[in-house]
Order: sequence, then structure tokens, then C-alpha cells
Amino acid sequence: MEKMRATVFHGINDIRVEEVERPHAAVGEAVIRVTLTTICGTDLHIVRGEYSVKPGLIIGHEPVGVIEELGPGVTGYEIGDRVLVGAITPCGQCRACLSGQLSQCGHGQGYEAIGGWRFGNTINGGQAEYLLVPYAQANLAKIPDEVTDEQVVLLADIASTGFSGAESGGVRIGDAVAVFAQGPIGLCATVGAKLMGAALVIGIDGDETRLAMARRMGADVVLDYREVDFVSEIKRLTGGGVDVAIEALGTQQTFENALRCLRPGGTLSSLGVYSGKLQMPYEAFAAGLGDHRIVTTLCPGGKERMRRLIEVVRRGRVDLTPLLTHRFSLNDIKEGYRIFGERLDGVLKVAIRP
Amino acid sequence: MEKMRATVFHGINDIRVEEVERPHAAVGEAVIRVTLTTICGTDLHIVRGEYSVKPGLIIGHEPVGVIEELGPGVTGYEIGDRVLVGAITPCGQCRACLSGQLSQCGHGQGYEAIGGWRFGNTINGGQAEYLLVPYAQANLAKIPDEVTDEQVVLLADIASTGFSGAESGGVRIGDAVAVFAQGPIGLCATVGAKLMGAALVIGIDGDETRLAMARRMGADVVLDYREVDFVSEIKRLTGGGVDVAIEALGTQQTFENALRCLRPGGTLSSLGVYSGKLQMPYEAFAAGLGDHRIVTTLCPGGKERMRRLIEVVRRGRVDLTPLLTHRFSLNDIKEGYRIFGERLDGVLKVAIRP
Amino acid sequence: MEKMRATVFHGINDIRVEEVERPHAAVGEAVIRVTLTTICGTDLHIVRGEYSVKPGLIIGHEPVGVIEELGPGVTGYEIGDRVLVGAITPCGQCRACLSGQLSQCGHGQGYEAIGGWRFGNTINGGQAEYLLVPYAQANLAKIPDEVTDEQVVLLADIASTGFSGAESGGVRIGDAVAVFAQGPIGLCATVGAKLMGAALVIGIDGDETRLAMARRMGADVVLDYREVDFVSEIKRLTGGGVDVAIEALGTQQTFENALRCLRPGGTLSSLGVYSGKLQMPYEAFAAGLGDHRIVTTLCPGGKERMRRLIEVVRRGRVDLTPLLTHRFSLNDIKEGYRIFGERLDGVLKVAIRP
Amino acid sequence: MEKMRATVFHGINDIRVEEVERPHAAVGEAVIRVTLTTICGTDLHIVRGEYSVKPGLIIGHEPVGVIEELGPGVTGYEIGDRVLVGAITPCGQCRACLSGQLSQCGHGQGYEAIGGWRFGNTINGGQAEYLLVPYAQANLAKIPDEVTDEQVVLLADIASTGFSGAESGGVRIGDAVAVFAQGPIGLCATVGAKLMGAALVIGIDGDETRLAMARRMGADVVLDYREVDFVSEIKRLTGGGVDVAIEALGTQQTFENALRCLRPGGTLSSLGVYSGKLQMPYEAFAAGLGDHRIVTTLCPGGKERMRRLIEVVRRGRVDLTPLLTHRFSLNDIKEGYRIFGERLDGVLKVAIRP
Repeated sequence: MEKMRATVFHGINDIRVEEVERPHAAVGEAVIRVTLTTICGTDLHIVRGEYSVKPGLIIGHEPVGVIEELGPGVTGYEIGDRVLVGAITPCGQCRACLSGQLSQCGHGQGYEAIGGWRFGNTINGGQAEYLLVPYAQANLAKIPDEVTDEQVVLLADIASTGFSGAESGGVRIGDAVAVFAQGPIGLCATVGAKLMGAALVIGIDGDETRLAMARRMGADVVLDYREVDFVSEIKRLTGGGVDVAIEALGTQQTFENALRCLRPGGTLSSLGVYSGKLQMPYEAFAAGLGDHRIVTTLCPGGKERMRRLIEVVRRGRVDLTPLLTHRFSLNDIKEGYRIFGERLDGVLKVAIRP
Repeated sequence: MEKMRATVFHGINDIRVEEVERPHAAVGEAVIRVTLTTICGTDLHIVRGEYSVKPGLIIGHEPVGVIEELGPGVTGYEIGDRVLVGAITPCGQCRACLSGQLSQCGHGQGYEAIGGWRFGNTINGGQAEYLLVPYAQANLAKIPDEVTDEQVVLLADIASTGFSGAESGGVRIGDAVAVFAQGPIGLCATVGAKLMGAALVIGIDGDETRLAMARRMGADVVLDYREVDFVSEIKRLTGGGVDVAIEALGTQQTFENALRCLRPGGTLSSLGVYSGKLQMPYEAFAAGLGDHRIVTTLCPGGKERMRRLIEVVRRGRVDLTPLLTHRFSLNDIKEGYRIFGERLDGVLKVAIRP
Repeated sequence: MEKMRATVFHGINDIRVEEVERPHAAVGEAVIRVTLTTICGTDLHIVRGEYSVKPGLIIGHEPVGVIEELGPGVTGYEIGDRVLVGAITPCGQCRACLSGQLSQCGHGQGYEAIGGWRFGNTINGGQAEYLLVPYAQANLAKIPDEVTDEQVVLLADIASTGFSGAESGGVRIGDAVAVFAQGPIGLCATVGAKLMGAALVIGIDGDETRLAMARRMGADVVLDYREVDFVSEIKRLTGGGVDVAIEALGTQQTFENALRCLRPGGTLSSLGVYSGKLQMPYEAFAAGLGDHRIVTTLCPGGKERMRRLIEVVRRGRVDLTPLLTHRFSLNDIKEGYRIFGERLDGVLKVAIRP
Repeated sequence: MEKMRATVFHGINDIRVEEVERPHAAVGEAVIRVTLTTICGTDLHIVRGEYSVKPGLIIGHEPVGVIEELGPGVTGYEIGDRVLVGAITPCGQCRACLSGQLSQCGHGQGYEAIGGWRFGNTINGGQAEYLLVPYAQANLAKIPDEVTDEQVVLLADIASTGFSGAESGGVRIGDAVAVFAQGPIGLCATVGAKLMGAALVIGIDGDETRLAMARRMGADVVLDYREVDFVSEIKRLTGGGVDVAIEALGTQQTFENALRCLRPGGTLSSLGVYSGKLQMPYEAFAAGLGDHRIVTTLCPGGKERMRRLIEVVRRGRVDLTPLLTHRFSLNDIKEGYRIFGERLDGVLKVAIRP
């Protein structure tokens, strides 16, 4: 029986790189040989036990690779094609997918909350030598020769998520946008707001390295929440509040502050993952009379989303490689988890090569 | 000096019908002789001191009347024209209005939260013999001869608000919609969801009279929250949750329940006025990953909104007169407030004739 | 080898009901035993040689039936389930489908113009005893017990198309809508405009039976183009033009008139199939400066669309059975084609029972 | 009586700079002293008799200036404020404006086709020392100190129009966009498509200088229609057609070609002014079955539009000054018309200083 090396979750704070069985493609599936992947904040939640998955699962959900096997019914691809697969793998054929809500994919049937996220959650993920891709026809995005693995690997999750913060917020030409937290997703939200024509993008964080990166990625103004009364400052800069506030952390503080910085009629576009009791300060949204919108978005996936984002990179509109601050082999992935988890050494994203 | 009778707020639980000075129209303004008005739940909040206005203010914001005076610069109207004026009176010329957010009107300048609501809030209102209408060019909607005052008076606020619950929720042909609370605004939201093509409209309340009225106004299913586990029942009826949930009361309970009844990717359209600490049960919106939208809407106003709603009534699409359960003269308005405030005698809306 | 009876196109004006091979389901496919179908105007175009298909093809694209076979990979269904299949059968997994444009389905790959229409066009159709359904997972819509075949058969094409005329037109509460031609699709557009909250729906045709049916299906005003200067009349009724004009015939005359009846900023929603040189009278759309929109729509399909429309019927919002004016067995389908083609006997739609 | 110098249309090919009466501000109006303006292609149409205005009219509609007088009822401004006024001056208070269609402004009442365009069309325009601004409250946009007249003058018309080509086309992150003709408006459409996140912007023209400017303003690919079979080339570059094609000239050729370059489901966003018989090649839009949209847009105006565009310039997102290739005093404006009209000397836009 063929084997491969993979990062397996065994329990809280217990992941191991070990030999496991190599997957094979059944009807509608594909197997890719992973050439590059990365570690996501969500993987940290899993390892720390803050998000629960079954012991024995291979984790990771941001794969670039080469097609190794194609199951029956998958057409238009060749063994050896280089592909990007999104973190979210919709089936395309359920009620949710046919309604355009690919992230809430019901696997052929109705809606399932967060059902589009399978890799490293409900099925084996990408921090491994090989990866089984479900619904392959809907999820394999070919990578043009002129772009590298490193240029596209962040599109699988953080860029797709970050950009969607701007998209779901409905950013328009001339808008003022504030992005709360400038970690990897917040930085991509900053890039996304800029891409969509915002005139003024304000990045908020409390970490100097991240604020510097925010500037580099296009923020017009950066505010350190430790030093500035940023609600007043944002209201001053915008003449009353931003059109769109993007929340990219998932805490009560950032959520609430994002709401407070909105103009009447503005939109809070939320990307964070929340826990505990999230409170809506009623006075911050005008007691429900301010024509505010609060929109939450899970990372958009599917091969067409990936194709579009690859085009953005290929045409030079966006370069996300500065966010890849560290590189490890699969065998050294635990060191990658340590540096990423403890936010050491100015780390933003860690590239893993199987 | 000419006088008129009007309902004046003097302090908490102290309103009086008394003689006050009659208004006159300056540049851009008009004065109408009020022929029909009504009492709103918001008026109750004012009288009870739950919403603060200045003592001496005439209250009320749902006026039908006849043009008595036209100030300089107001064109296309004649003295004697019968008109409906919305509860919200946008200027049409500020940043908010020119952005299409008429309810957040900034009176010629930027945005002002809830700034479009002036009558009985920041300027004298309509529970009086005469009413000064600001920005008259943008706010006088002529009433065709074939419709009566009673047919249109509820369009000024509760129908415009209730319908907007469905509109902001983006109700589409074939949707399942749940409306939480079947008071006057909830009933209008039920009507609005039906008008927009919802296949299934579910009305929730705990008052039998209101549930019966919900059925009469078009709800397909009504649920008494005192008797049914309505979250489960709604999920059963819809195969996983409604497309749109409309909140029409303004409490933690209804807000939270509306959220719990949504399908992944669904929209909570909120009409209520909230106070205190509103909590978002994070598990009810999939920790922020369910692609949910929460939209708040303040009553849309302006003469074009009123014209459109009058057309809906004129063409017989909607008949709201069953909601007008009681009638009083202006002199007896305090009795109207008592019955409306204590929800006696199956009251829904009270018509007041000056 | 098993046989079945089917309506086969052999050449212009040459269709025959004959024995052909019965289909079987491969990977991702299903076979249904057809219990009810109908004849579409498009079928007439095929028979008359106005639209070209390969000789030997079974025609028809509006099937109701019972699942007879399920190919590998199709889940959540049982043999014997009663289902409706839309005229358009998207794959759900190509670039077009993943972008929400199911009708332009590229069969797993990019976009293909009109690629979602396969039945009776590029693969065998439904005027037969059995029908092979491609991409079955995305296209089988279960029919609840309480609705009959006749109640749902028109949803497969004409209702989905007609309603989409209103949907693509963006009909809103209070709109005035004119529908040009009141054949089966125009009548469904009339129903759709009404369903979405139009205050005033004007039906235009030159056939008294159809105008009478338009009234029955909800038109507020009907205009006989042979007798009325309908452009002036529509402008008079609406104070300057309709918000949305729906074209449901596919001729220069109806297209041009629809454009002339629009208000500035209005939308022409076109459902017709055009040939020859279609002209845009530049003065009718304000030389391109009138903020007009022209939107074309091909019948929306897929199981979720069908499910939503079935809900509309099931909840009693719409009853399309009055449009089924004639009924024939499959063996007598040529008589059905004759009556439908020559518009004899007040025919609107013809039901065919295999 | 005070006099001023102005550019007056006397008849075909007869404009004169002469002394005329200086305007004064009545209720709701303002007068600005014009500090910079420009000549538009529309002015050429007027001078050549291709678009008809009354003899005696002062022409021009792109004014930057300083407030000289404020009529009664105009608030929030000071004499001496530097302002930009859009080419389109909506009232904000009519049916069209309150519906968000400011360009089809009905001057307080209903809709009027192109009614928002007044300057140099139905009232005196801006190629003069002083300009009367109607509906001043809705139309005076203050200019921040840090931006110059030259940086903002093109926002009044061509940038607002050009950007709207991308906005009405609904350009999204990752789109492919083709812009037909790279004159001043087409160049601004190129900039607008880029601003909204298009991955690939293709500029088409037959003039080398303009193609070079297209590259400079952000086009990724430029095609000379005299040398390339651009329809095939665009289909090759995009894998089947662009998401959005923007027409920026107003001819049968560009309109038709724009349509031919669309993918199924794509949008043709038309900015051109058409005359004669515009034909829709039915095969180019899939006989009406391709889910295509054709959208026309008249230059968006009003002070909020101007404010947003000024922000875009102020924050350095866009620099349009390279389009200002020539400068003349008001007294020499006829020379400016000659050079602009005959497209001499690589002219794109001509700045005029009164």
C-alpha cells in the first residue's frame, strides 16, 4: 500500500508529521500532489482545541499542487496540470450552490452551515504530500505557467476571504473604508478595498510591523489603537464615519469599534470568527434606525473564484508574496506552527513545501 | 395671531390638546391643514419618556391633509391639493439624500443619524390642525381622488416601514419569510413579504387577535410563540430555515429568534427600535461564518416613496384599512393614546381627525 | 433491447412518434419515466426549420416524471420519486455555473452561449416515454405529494422564463410594468410582475382571448394594439412611462415599442428570441443618454429554481393550470402540434401524456 | 449693469466671446466666478449644429470656480469657497432624483429625459466669467486646499462619465474589460475599470497617441483596430469574451463590436451618444438568449458625486492632469475649439481660464 507523509491532528497541542495511506480518486474526485501549502489561523484554533475536529484528521486547507489522479467523470484536465484549490470546495449542485452560496454547500442537497469548508475540517486536508479533492470538476483551477506557486498559494484562503470583506461590504469608487486588525486577512481586506476603488483605506492595529505592512499593501492611513482615539480620528478624517468597516479579527472589541466608526447607512463587513457572547452596542448602530448593514462572509471558493484571483495576480494588480515571511519543509511544519502561533519574528504567513 | 389646536408634549405622561400658534410657510416650506393622522408606537415611547423630545413640541408624524400655504420656491402644487406626507421628510440635497439614504438626511449637508425623521421629533408634528412641512418640494405627495384619507394614512409610516422590511431583506419569488411580532409594523411586513413574491410567510406573535389579523393580511402560517417551539417548527416547514427573517418589535428575544430561524446565507431584516444591550448569539449566526446579513431600516420617506405606495393602494394590491380599528377626534386624542397604549379592545391603529 | 415511444425530428415539418432505444443512466445521470410534458413555441421553430437541430433528435424540454434509474454518484433520491426537471439543465460545476449564470453552462468548463439548454436541442428531449437527465444531482426537483403534475409542468420553461422577465427587470413594489404580447410566456411575465409587487401591470396583445386571459392572470389594464395608440396610453396611465417593459415575443415591433414605453431610467427586460436585424430606435432610448437598461434572459433552470417555483404553486400564490387548454396522448402529439402551431381553438398550452 | 465675458452660441459654426449680462442668484441658486473650465465633445456637436440649442446661449458645462453669490435658502457655504460643479445639476427633489436617477431630473416634478443636463444646454453654461448654478444646495462641491483646479476640472464630466461606464457595467475584482475608443471619456473608462479591480483592461482605438495614453492610464493591453482582428484577439485573451465591454464613442461600429466581444452573460455599458439607426446584430447577442445586459449611462452629477471623485484625486488614486494637453484663455477659446475640433497636435482636453 502506498504511503505519504502528512500532518495529523491527534489531540489538543498534539500534531505529528507521519506516514499515512495515500488517497485515490473515486467518481468525481481528483488527487493532487501538493507542492506548496501554508498554515492558517484556523489551523491554530484546531491545534489549540478552540475548534474541534476528529483526531486522526490531516489538517490544512490552502493547497497548490499537480494533478496526480482524476476520477471518473472529471473532464478537461490532464495528469500533471498545475492547480490551485480553494479552501472551500463547493459541490456546485446543491440548493446552496445553485443559489450562489457556495460556502454553505450542502453536498448535493440543501444548505449546510459552513458546509463548503471540508479540507482539514471534515475531510483530510492539505498539509500532506497528496490531497484528495472532492467535487474536482468544480474545484481545480489551472495555474498559468507565468505565475509561481508562491504567487498564488495565499489566494486559496486569506486573499479570497480578505477581498470578500471589501466585496460583501460593497465598496465603491470614492469610499472611505476602515479595516480592523492588519493580520494576514486584514491586510488582504486592505488590498481588496483598494482594488475596488476606495479613496481612503484606514488600517487599524496595535502592532508596528503589521501597520508598516498595511502601508506597504496600500493603506492610506494607519492607526495604532494603543496610541490614538481612532473612533474620533476616523470620524474626523471622513467627515462622519466610513462607508464600510471591515472586521478581520473576531473579537468583541473590533466588532464594536467597527460599528462605531460607520456613517449612518454604512456597512460593517465581518470576516472574523466569533465565540462567546457578541454584543451589539445599540447606541452604536442608532438603536436599529441607522440603515446599517452587517454582513458576514466565509471565504469564497470554487475554481472560478480561484481563476479570477489568479488573473488579478497574473496581471500584476496585486502581489501578496511579501506576506510569505517564512518557509519550512513539511517535515519541519511543527516549527512553522510554533513561530506562526507565537507570532515570532514578524511572521505573517508561513509557506510549507511537502 | 391665528391659533390652532394641537397635541403638545409637556413632559413624561403629560400631553395636552391646546391652542398654539398656527405655522406659516417660509422659503421651500408648505403648510397643510391636517385631515387625518394617527398615533404611532414611537409616540407612546415619547409620552412615556422612553424617547426624549423637548417639552412644548407638537407630536405625531403620519399626516394626511390639504395644502393651505406654499412658500417661495415650491412649484407644481396648488392650494387645496390633497396630499400625504411621509413620517420621514428628506431634503433631497444633502450628502445622505444624494446617496439615496433619505432617512439619514443631513439637512443640506452630510449625514445625520435618523436625521430624516423630523415631525414630532425635532420639529412640530402632525397631531394638530395645521402642519408645517419642511423641504416641501420633496415631500408633498398628491392623493388621487379615488382613494380616501383612511386608505393612505398608514402609508406615511407603518406601511413604508413594514414593506421596507421585506425590501431591505431582498425577498424574492419563492422565498420563505418569517415575521417576528404581528403588531402594526409586523403586519405590514407580512403584507410586504407577500407583495414581493414570498411563497411562504410565517407570522409569529403571542396575541390571538394579532395572529388572526396576520392570517387575514396574508400570512400562510401563524405561530403562537407561547404554544409552539417555533424555531424547530420553522426549520421543519422550510427545510432548514427561512431566507429572510423580519424583526418588527425591537427586543432581544425577537432579534435573537429571528437570527436562529435563518438558513445559512439568510438575511435578518430588522425594523425594531432597540435599547439596552443587544446580544448576538454567536452560535446562532454560525460564529460569523454563515454568510448571514443583518440589515436595519428606518422608514423610507419622501414624496416618491409615498407616490409609489399610494399606487399600490389605488390599484387594489393592498388594503390596510382593517388595521384602523379605532377613530377619535383630535380633542379626544388622549383617550386614543390610552386605548392604543394599553392595547385595549383589540386596537391596532387609531385614526385621529382634527 | 428495451424500446420506448418518442417524438423524433426527421426534418422540416417531419416529426414522427416512433419506437426508439430506451436510455440508461451513466455516472451522474438519471432516467425518468415521463408522466407529463408539453409543446413549446421553440419546438414549433424546430419543426418549421427556423431553429436547427440534428435529424434523429427527440424533441421537447418540459418534463415531469418519475425516477426510473439513478447513475453512480447521484445521491439523495429514490427510484420512484416524482420530479420536475427544468428546460435548462446546468452542470453546476463550470465557470458559468459557478458565476451564477446557469443558463450559459459550459458543461464543466467555461461559458457556452445558451449552453444550459440541452433537452431537445443538443441531447434527446422529453416528448417521449423516458428521458435521460444529465447532471442529475443538479436538476431533479422533487414534487410534493399535494401538487399535481399539471400544476407544475409549466414551471419547467414558460413560468421560469416569464417570471424571470420580471426578476431581471428588477420589478419593485409600486412599479408600473408593461408586458408586450400575452402568449404563454407573456402571461407568465404578467403573473411574475404581479408577484413581485408591481402596482400596475399592463398587458398588450392583439388577440381578444389572450387579453381576456391576461386579465384573468392579473393584468390591471389590457390594451389591444390594433385599437389603441398604446404608447400614448401607457405614458398617460403612468405619468411618463413604465418602470419596466417586458418583451415576450421576439419581434422588431414589440422590442421597439417596449423601449418607447419606458420612462427615463427604465428597464427593458427582453425574453423574446430574435432573428434578422434588430434595430434600436436611437430616439426611443434618448440617444443613449436615458440611463436605460436592456436585459435579456434565458429561462433559469436547475433543481433549486424548480423547487422555488414549486413552492410558489404549492402555497397557492399562482395557478397556471388555466393555461393548459388542451390535452393529448403522446401518440396524438402531431395533432397537438397542429392545434398549437396554428393557434386554433383558443389554445395556449398543450399537455402531452406519454 | 454689470457685464461679463462669455462664449455665446449664435448659430452653426458661429460662437463668439462677448460681453453679456452678469447673472445674480435668486432663491436656491448661487453664482460662481469661473476659474477653470474646458471644452467637451458635446460642445463641438452644438457648434456644428449636430445637437440643437437656442442661439444666444452661453455654452460649456465643466466649471470650477469660487462662490460669488448665494441665494436665499442655500446654507453651509461661504462667499469665496472654491467649488466644483458637475455637468449635471440635479434638483434632488423630483421623482427621478428621489429615485436615485439624478441625471433624469424633472426639476421638482417627475422624470425628464436627460433633464439633469442644463448648463450650456437649457440654461447658460460655464465658458464664461460667471455662472449661475441652479439647485445650488445640491450641486456645490467644496474643493480641499490641497488639490488644484486642474486636478479636478475633468471630474465634472468626463471622469464622472467614464468611471460610470465601469460602475454601470458592474466591474468586479478579476474581470476582463474592453473599452472601445480611447478618447477622453474612453480613457476615463479605462481608469475606472482599473479602479474597480478589473484584472485585464483592453483599450481599443485607431490612434497611436491615444493608445499610448491608454497604456499610461492603466490599460493592460491596447489594440489598434486598424491592425488587429480585435474580436478574435479579445476572445483569445479572455477565454471567450470580456465580462464588461464599455462603449465610449457612440457609433454603430463600436456598439456592435462591443457586443461581439462579450462573453455569454456579459454586460455592454454604453456611454456614447448615438444618432441614426443603431442596429443590434441579433447573432452577436445570442438572439436574445445570452443573458446579456446593455446599460446606458448619462454622466452622474450632484455635489456628492463630485465630492467622492475629488476624494479619489485627493488621495492620489487617480491623476487625470495628463489629459489636459492644451491651455487657453477665455478670449482665445475659439482657437481651443479649432484645435480640439480638428484633433490637432495630439490634443485630448483643453483647459480654459476665464
